[in-house]
Parts: sequence; structure tokens; C-alpha cells
Amino acid sequence: MKKILVLGAGRSSSSLINYLLENSTEEGWKVRVGDYALELAQDRCKNSENGYAFAFDIGNEDQLNEEVKAADIVVSMLPAKYHVVVAKSCLKWDKNMVTASYVSKEMQAYDAEAKERGIIILNECGLDPGIDHMSAMKVIDEIRHRGGVLTGFESFTGGLLAPGTDEKNPWEYKFTWNPRNVILAGQGVVKFIQEGTYKYIPYQKVFRRTEQVHIPGYGYFEGYANRDSLNYLDIYGLRGIKTIYRGTFRRPGFCRTWNVFVQLGATDDSYEMEGVKDMTHRSFINSFLSYNPNDSVELKLAYYLNLDIDGPEMHRLRWAGIFDHTPVGLTQGTPAQILEHILKKKWTLKKEDKDMIVMWHKFQYEENGEEKEIHSTLVAIGDDDIYTAMSKTVGLPLGIATKLILQGKVHGTGVQIPIKKEIYAPILKELSSFGFEMTEKEVNNTQSV
Amino acid sequence: MKKILVLGAGRSSSSLINYLLENSTEEGWKVRVGDYALELAQDRCKNSENGYAFAFDIGNEDQLNEEVKAADIVVSMLPAKYHVVVAKSCLKWDKNMVTASYVSKEMQAYDAEAKERGIIILNECGLDPGIDHMSAMKVIDEIRHRGGVLTGFESFTGGLLAPGTDEKNPWEYKFTWNPRNVILAGQGVVKFIQEGTYKYIPYQKVFRRTEQVHIPGYGYFEGYANRDSLNYLDIYGLRGIKTIYRGTFRRPGFCRTWNVFVQLGATDDSYEMEGVKDMTHRSFINSFLSYNPNDSVELKLAYYLNLDIDGPEMHRLRWAGIFDHTPVGLTQGTPAQILEHILKKKWTLKKEDKDMIVMWHKFQYEENGEEKEIHSTLVAIGDDDIYTAMSKTVGLPLGIATKLILQGKVHGTGVQIPIKKEIYAPILKELSSFGFEMTEKEVNNTQSV
Repeated sequence: MKKILVLGAGRSSSSLINYLLENSTEEGWKVRVGDYALELAQDRCKNSENGYAFAFDIGNEDQLNEEVKAADIVVSMLPAKYHVVVAKSCLKWDKNMVTASYVSKEMQAYDAEAKERGIIILNECGLDPGIDHMSAMKVIDEIRHRGGVLTGFESFTGGLLAPGTDEKNPWEYKFTWNPRNVILAGQGVVKFIQEGTYKYIPYQKVFRRTEQVHIPGYGYFEGYANRDSLNYLDIYGLRGIKTIYRGTFRRPGFCRTWNVFVQLGATDDSYEMEGVKDMTHRSFINSFLSYNPNDSVELKLAYYLNLDIDGPEMHRLRWAGIFDHTPVGLTQGTPAQILEHILKKKWTLKKEDKDMIVMWHKFQYEENGEEKEIHSTLVAIGDDDIYTAMSKTVGLPLGIATKLILQGKVHGTGVQIPIKKEIYAPILKELSSFGFEMTEKEVNNTQSV
Repeated sequence: MKKILVLGAGRSSSSLINYLLENSTEEGWKVRVGDYALELAQDRCKNSENGYAFAFDIGNEDQLNEEVKAADIVVSMLPAKYHVVVAKSCLKWDKNMVTASYVSKEMQAYDAEAKERGIIILNECGLDPGIDHMSAMKVIDEIRHRGGVLTGFESFTGGLLAPGTDEKNPWEYKFTWNPRNVILAGQGVVKFIQEGTYKYIPYQKVFRRTEQVHIPGYGYFEGYANRDSLNYLDIYGLRGIKTIYRGTFRRPGFCRTWNVFVQLGATDDSYEMEGVKDMTHRSFINSFLSYNPNDSVELKLAYYLNLDIDGPEMHRLRWAGIFDHTPVGLTQGTPAQILEHILKKKWTLKKEDKDMIVMWHKFQYEENGEEKEIHSTLVAIGDDDIYTAMSKTVGLPLGIATKLILQGKVHGTGVQIPIKKEIYAPILKELSSFGFEMTEKEVNNTQSV
């Protein structure tokens, strides 16, 4: 009987826990699920004889050590900053560990010790980071195996709404993951390489320099650049590549409208605003506009940012309620916190809403003197507001990785990410049995960024 | 015989030391001038029998203590971060101290101790901060004395070129103070109050939301907002005022062109660029533009930022040499450091160049039921590239304050700034004998921001 410890039972854990419980009888697993909110953990475990919910406090070191000591593997779904706390305990008791988060500097520092103790701490094993690594490395390894040389790599992922969901929503978007990350997206400088030249985009231009991508059957998407493209040169072993660019997908028109908030300064998280208690959506927006008692907030905004007063950007903004006289409903906050609070009123998934994950890679390479191109695409649709495509594509790779480690099929040790074939191949294979399969297609045209 | 210790003999100290030496015989002063570069200190002291130059290292605590112990007053012209080091020594030996820098939190923390020991640490006693405080408080105190109530305060200062200097320079600008501060100006959020409403401007809009001001005899200026207007509510005792706005003057057209660098991300100081060793002015600019081998850098830039290819912004940029194939001449650097290095090639004062300081305040107030307005203006012109208007308007208030303290005419203790009449009145009076006088004028029209 193997014991799996899952820490954190929030929304993002729903599909992970579901997967573990569904496999528990066949695999002979007991699954202990701990959360600060006991009811959440209980909710996730109901209807399963192998699931045990308990109240868990990451601040309680003794409890953490007891739980880790009794487990065979630990899956941390806690906020990213707590992973190192869990890792420390896993190192103490020689337990393997899995997360869906980026490897922090503090986590990387545990690499030598994890190797010494013969355990694996597998991170970045969700969707993005996660399936992106796996599906990209699969194609990159195949190209190299055939003797091809990669010259360009572009990759986009987006968490969006499924076609037909909330059809009057002109953003074609709702929050399906941490809303705060959506508000702060793009801050800091973007770095990438295009045709051998380093390129930099500052925050104030990120949402204007977008790329259009068409995906057959799903229509057009626009991608804005992620900040960290250069990191992937070493992660994927791509030093010397001529083009590398990673981005995030939205539906066309989203970025131009989001840029309004960026230009206003409404996504700033560096200072607390004055008078939040008495603030309305409208006065929030007005605080970023010039004083002019003769013009409406709408007109001032449209004029300031050169928008057509009846155009699509103003339509999206009106729909989002930002001109309403509705009280914000906070007593304090930064612009970013206030904007998040306002947008949540319209951008929270309803029971009947289905979300959609779209991932798309473009590989350019030379093989036998020929320039070639492969597009790799994954589209996943959610069931409802709990078993979202997001929670499935994050949770299933985590669950499958946990199974592979428990089955002794993963041989690496240390702080790892899923870029080795022994990890990514079986995970991608099992994912496809759930309908989550990258479709790879060789194309003739060279579509340039 | 009183002993004055001046620490730091860089460009900004020229007029200060000149003033102290010129008054030294009459006042019975010995002036010791210390700098890390002994020749600089010697240069400042030549031709004076009361000036003594010495090599000084702020890292040498023993030397600092010896020098402070032997002095009657200390003027710190060191980089701002060292003032607290000097202040600590002044507190140890009960010596008064004067600086031209903003009061840091660390400096403010010395207030109680300075009061206990009966010494004054007078800061913000240069131009801006300095003369701005004094000249504003003079008018504010007069309005209050007459029973008026201040409703609006706007204040702008600029360090520019004198009319007739470098006439072909389309920016009408060169560096006359710390270039790094000019490059980074406007970063962080601007906060002010307009007609009772808090207003915020993000960095990406600061150089577009400028105000035009006409100063008779000197023409038009444009002002961009400083970040710190709300701080002045308490400093000047203006809580409840309807409008408060502080800014910086440039000549018309400067800000729109500077905004090009802001939009490109060329003023970012947060990351090191790649390949700086081989970078030219042109490739520096190109790294912020999209890849397109068929268009020139000029055309890509003009199109990206919606500039007329033959318009005044592109003319200023061409004049500054940013499209030249000239090597940058650095081996590493952030965008901000590289831009500073490029602009110094054109924006360094020549021997024959004269600079100009312009300060302008607008006071709106109610008196006997009437709405009134006063404009207060100072214009100062430099002699050459050493005795600049900047060095004079920074150095003279410092020198005069030093004299007043030595003469026992300043009675306050603790960490102070020159907002009390006993300090500002005699300083402004003596400044006027040098031709630096604010002209105050009651105006009828209400010019609104």
C-alpha cells in the first residue's frame, strides 16, 4: 500500500486528486489530502474509500514532518513560495516530490542534496510549465534524432473560453487560473531572439506587439510575448538558435483592450491608492485621466488613448463595467488589486461555463539541406467550472508523473523538470488516452513572426 | 577663526567653494576642501590663502572623525547616500551640517539625537530642493499673513540651455546636472491632486501629459510631472488644498521626443543587455524594434511610434546621433547606461556654453472672497561650463546657509529643511544681491493645468 500526500486542495487540485483517487484501488494507493480549509479537502475526497482529508497548516513544522515521514511521495499544490518548505522536509525523510511550479533559485539549490539522498523533486510538471516542455522536447528530440538542426522555436499557450461559452462576452475571456497573475502579466522586460538578433520589448509595448496565429477548427488567436524566452536556450539546449519566442494566447482584440489598462497605469501594483473606500469603478478609471469637468470619463479615455468611442475596445471596456458608478467594494488596494476586484465581477466562471486550453508550437529546422517547419497543437475543453481544462491539463501530468515515480519508472534524481524522454514519453502517451494529444503537422509555408 | 569642512569638490561644488573662499577673509574662515581626487580639491582652492585642499576617502572613518572634530561646520557635497555617514560623525562631535539633498529616511531618524545635542542638520538647501522651498514658503507665508487661503500650488524647475547657446541643438538641452538622474526621470508613478481629485500618471504617459507655461522674456516651456507632489502637502502644510502639482521644465518638443526613448524601453535600468561590446548607436535602437530586414531603423522607429519621418522628433533623434553606425564604446550596460553614454557625446557642455535655470511657481488663493493668483519666477544664466547657473543656484544657498549658521543667526536644531522664515528670508535676500531674485506678479487670468 503506497501513501500519496497531496498538500493543497484548492481549485487547481480538483483533477489531480480525482485522477489519484480513480487509480487508487488498482494501484493500491492511499491518498491523504491536506488543506488549511478542511472542507475543501473533504470535498475533494468524497465518494472515495482511499481518500483521507485532514486540516493542514504549512506553518506547523511538526505536522508537516509527520505527514511527509508517513508518505511515499508528496505532491505540493500549495502557493509556489511554500514548495521549498515542503522540499526541506522531503529531503529530511528521503521522499520524492512533485510540483507544477517553476524551479525557484531556492529550489535549485537543493539539487545536490536531493541527488545525494537519491530522491527526485520533479517541478514544472503541469500545463505551462509542464506539457509545454514535454511536447516541445518530444518534437525537438525527434528532429535531432533524424539529424535535423533546429533554427527557430516559437511557443504559445492560452487559457481561454471554449467556443460557445458566454457568447456575449466580447473579451472571449474569463479568469481560469490565478487572476493576480493575469493582471500583472507582461510586467518586466520581454527578451527574445529573432533571426539572430536580441530583441527587447518594454511593458508599455508588450500588448501592442502581438502575433496572429490561425489554428484550423478553432480560428484566430493573438499572442503576446512572455518575458522569459532566453531562459529556454539552456533548458532546451538551444544555444545558437536563430529565433526563440514564447508567448501567451488571447482571442483577437483582447490585447489591444488590455493595453488600455496598461497605458492608464491601472495594473500598477507598487503603491496604495487614496480614498479606495469611497471609490467606484468609474472614479477608479477617472483617477488615471486628466481633470476636465466638461467631458465624460468615456470621452476622456477614448481621446487620451486614441480609441474610437464606439469601437471594439470601448465596447469591451463598457461590458467589463469599468465606467459604472458601482462601488469597488474594497477599503484599500493597489491599482492592480482594485482592477482584479472589478474584473472578477464579470470574469468569474459560472457553473455552465467551459474553458479551453490552446497550446501551439512552431519548429523551424534544416534537414538534408531543406528548410522545414512543424506545427504542434493541443486544444483541451473543460467540463464545467470545477473540472476545467486548466485543472485537467495541470493536474493529469502531475498525477501521471506521481504514478510513474511510484511505479519506479523514473530513474533520475535531484531537482528536475520533465524534459527527459523517460518522463515525457509515458506522460504524453497517457494524456492522449484522456483526449489531450498534441497534433503535429509538417507545413510548407514559412510563416514568420 | 572658524573652520568650514567641505566634503566633495566635484562640479556641483564650484560655486559653493568660490563663495566660501570669497567671504573667508572678511568672516575669518578657514575652508578645508576634501575630495577623493586631490587635484579637484586643489583646483577649487587655488588663488585663496584660506583654502586648504586634502585627499579624502569617505571609507576612512578615522579621517572623517578627525576632520569633523576639527571643524566648526560641515558641508557635504558627497553623493547623497554618504550624507548619513557624515551626519553620524557630526552627531559624535556636536557639529552643524548642511547638504543640498533630500532628507532620506535614515537622515530623518537622526532628528531626535540632533535636537538632543543641540545641532542643526540643514538639508535640501540647494536649488531644487532648496530655493524652491524658500521661494514658495515666502509667498505662502505672505498669503497666510494677509488672511488668504491657498487653493492651488504648482511649481516647475528646469536646468536648460541659455538662449543663444548651442543654437543648432534642436533639443535646446544638455546635461547640466547628474546625467543618470535625467535618464531615469519620471520612473515610478506620478501622484498629484487636481481640483480635489487624486490623479496618477504612469511612467509610460508622463512625457505626454505635459503643461505649457509662457514666461515673459524667455518664451515657452513645457513641464512634465514629478513623482512626489503629495509629499509637499505636509512639508508646506497644505493638507486640504485643491490642486498641487510639481514638475520639471524642458523646452517645447523635448518631452515628446524623450517619450520615444521611454516607449522603446531605452531608459530601462533593470537588466544588462546582450552583446554590448559590439553594439553601435544604431543597433542599440534596433534591438527595441521589430525584425524586418527590408526597412531602415529610422522607418521602423517612425512607424512604430507614429512619428512623421521628417518631423521634429525624428530631427532631434537624428541630431543626437542615435541612428549612427558609431560604436557605443561600452563593454556592458543596462539600456539606461548605454543611452546615457550615447547622449553624453552630444549633451556635454562645452567651455563656451551657458546654462539656464528657470523656476516658476503658481499660487492660487482666496482673499476677502476674491480668487487671486500669483506667479513667481526665477531665471538664472551661467557664466561658462564650470560656474554654471546650476552650480551657482545650488552652491550659493548652501554657502549663505553655512554663513548664517556660523554667525549664530539660525536657532533651530534637529534635521531641518529651509522652510522657516529665519532661514529663507536672509538667504533669499542675499541671493538677490547676486541677481538671483524671484519676481512675483499678481495675475488676473486663471490659467488652469
